[in-house]
Amino acid sequence: MKSLTLGIDIGGTNTALGLVSSDGKIMAKGSISTRRYSDINSYIDSIFTEASRLCEEAQAEISAIGIGAPCVNQSTGCIDGATDLPWGSHVPIRQLMEDRFGTSARATNDANAAAAGEMVFGAARGLKNFIMLTLGTGVGAGVVCDGHLLGGNCGFAGELGHYTIADGEHRECGCGRYDCLQTYASASGVVVTARKLLSEESYSQSPLAVSPTALTPQAIYHHALEGDPLALKIFAFTGEMLGKAAANFATFSSPEAIILFGGVSGAAEFIFPAMQKAMDENLLHIYKNKIRLLKSELQGADAAILGAAALCGTL
Amino acid sequence: MKSLTLGIDIGGTNTALGLVSSDGKIMAKGSISTRRYSDINSYIDSIFTEASRLCEEAQAEISAIGIGAPCVNQSTGCIDGATDLPWGSHVPIRQLMEDRFGTSARATNDANAAAAGEMVFGAARGLKNFIMLTLGTGVGAGVVCDGHLLGGNCGFAGELGHYTIADGEHRECGCGRYDCLQTYASASGVVVTARKLLSEESYSQSPLAVSPTALTPQAIYHHALEGDPLALKIFAFTGEMLGKAAANFATFSSPEAIILFGGVSGAAEFIFPAMQKAMDENLLHIYKNKIRLLKSELQGADAAILGAAALCGTL
Repeated sequence: MKSLTLGIDIGGTNTALGLVSSDGKIMAKGSISTRRYSDINSYIDSIFTEASRLCEEAQAEISAIGIGAPCVNQSTGCIDGATDLPWGSHVPIRQLMEDRFGTSARATNDANAAAAGEMVFGAARGLKNFIMLTLGTGVGAGVVCDGHLLGGNCGFAGELGHYTIADGEHRECGCGRYDCLQTYASASGVVVTARKLLSEESYSQSPLAVSPTALTPQAIYHHALEGDPLALKIFAFTGEMLGKAAANFATFSSPEAIILFGGVSGAAEFIFPAMQKAMDENLLHIYKNKIRLLKSELQGADAAILGAAALCGTL
Repeated sequence: MKSLTLGIDIGGTNTALGLVSSDGKIMAKGSISTRRYSDINSYIDSIFTEASRLCEEAQAEISAIGIGAPCVNQSTGCIDGATDLPWGSHVPIRQLMEDRFGTSARATNDANAAAAGEMVFGAARGLKNFIMLTLGTGVGAGVVCDGHLLGGNCGFAGELGHYTIADGEHRECGCGRYDCLQTYASASGVVVTARKLLSEESYSQSPLAVSPTALTPQAIYHHALEGDPLALKIFAFTGEMLGKAAANFATFSSPEAIILFGGVSGAAEFIFPAMQKAMDENLLHIYKNKIRLLKSELQGADAAILGAAALCGTL
C-alpha cells in the first residue's frame, strides 16, 4: 500500500482535499462544503470520511497531513480570528486533525502554503530565497529565506499585501489604511486602476469603455491580448507598483526570485516588463541582476492541495 | 583549562578581538591594526599571535571563532566587495581563520553580528523575532525571524538602511538613490535634519544655531537633555521616520521587538515616543500592541566582540 500526503485547503465555501505523491501527483481528490458544518467536530469527521474514501480509491494510506487555511498561526497550528469560517475565533486545526487521523499534521495560512507548493513542486524548486505574491481577491505573500518559510511572531510574517507603497494615489484599503500593495495589485485593485484610467479622455475609445461595470482582470487581459492600449496600460501600471514594492522587499530578505501566483498573475506577460523596469530602477546596486521574476507553475485548482501537501516537507 | 569563544570584529582601521565566556563575559581582549597588513596571510598571522597572547592571559583555549566584518556573505563566509579593507574584492575569511586556528568559525556582516550579540547576551534574550537597527555612520540591520538570523541570497538580507521610506523629502543617499532610511536615521541623516530645521525661522534662537558646523548627534542629545525645542524636534522627526519604516517592516517578519543600536540610539529616550506614535498610526491592526521598542543592552566598545562571539551559537 502506497503512503501519500493528505493536502487540505480550507476555503470559506468549500474544502478541497487530495492525496499527493512525493513527486507532486494528485492520486485522488475530493471536496466537502465548509459552510455546512457549524460544528467543528462534525466538519473534521466529514473530512475524515472523505479522506477515507480517497484512500480506498487510491489504494493508499496517509503518512502526513498538510493544511492551508486563512489566518493560521503556523507555529501553533491554530486558526485565529478568521472571519470567513464558522467555528469561532480560535480553532486548533492542526491538533484536531492529528487527533482524528492519528497522524502528524502541519498548518499554515494559504499564501504560505502556496509558497511551500512552489518550493517543492513548482517554479521555486531548488530556490532557497524567494517571495511568492498571491494576487487574488487580496494580495497574500509567502516569504522563503535561507530555505525557511517565515512565520514570525503569531505567524504573521509575510503580510505583504498590506505593505504601504511609496508614491501612491492614496487608495483606501479594507484594513482602514491607505496605499497597501493590495489596493493596486489585487483583482479589485486592477479594476480601480482601470476605472481611473477610463476616466481619462485618451482612453474613451477603448473597448473596455463600453461596459465599465463588467471590468475584471480576465476581461482586461482579453483586451490586452488584442493590443488595446488601455488594457496594456492597466497592467503596466500594476507592474510598476509591484516592481517598486519588490525593490524594497529585496532589502529585507534578498530573494533570488519574486513569483506571482493567483488570478491577476494570469496577465504576467503584460505585468512583468513594467515590473522588471520599476524594480531595476529602484533596486540597491547589490541586488541588481540577481532577482528573477517568475510565474507560478502551479496555477489552477490543484495548486492549493499541492501547496498544503508540500508543508509536510517544509515546516 | 577553560574553553572560550574568540570574537573578532574587523573594522577598516582596527580589528578588535576578545575571548568570551558562555555567559557573555570578555575574559581577555586586544586589538591589532587592520590597515597595517596589505597581505591577508600576514594579517591572519597577526590575529593568531594576538589570540595566543589572550589565551595565555586568560588561561584558556579557543573552542570556536566568530567574525563580524563589512560585506560578509554569511552562507559562504567570504568578504565580497568591501571597499574599506585592503585585501581585494574576495576574501574567504572564515576558511582562512579555520585553517590557521584549526577550529570552526562563523562569519557575518557587522550589523548581523550585533543582532546575534543582542539575541545571546543582550536585550533580545528569549526573543525569536526581532529587528536590530544599527544607527551609526550609516544604518545597518539584522533581522531575526523564527529564531534564525536571515542571510538571504548572497548574504544580503537585512539591508534596511537602504529601504526607501514613503513620504520622504527626496534626500539623496550615498548609494545614488533617494530617501533610503539611512538618509534620516544615520548620524549624518540626523545632522541633515538639524540643518534643515535650523533654516526655519522658529528655531533661530536655539543654542544649536550658534555653531551649526559643529552639529553632531551627541551635541544635539546634550541640548535635548536641557529641553531645547529644536533638539527635541530633531529626534522626534528621526523617530517618526523610523516608526513609519518599522510599520512596514512588521508586514515582512512580524517582529516582537525593534531594537536600536549604535551612536544615534544613545538618544533613544527622545526618539522612542515619536517612533512609537508613528508606528502605531501606520501599523496593520494584527501587529498592534505586539511590537516593543528596545534599546540595545550591549552599547559600547565590547558590543562588537560579543556580537561576533555570539555567532557561534546562532549561525
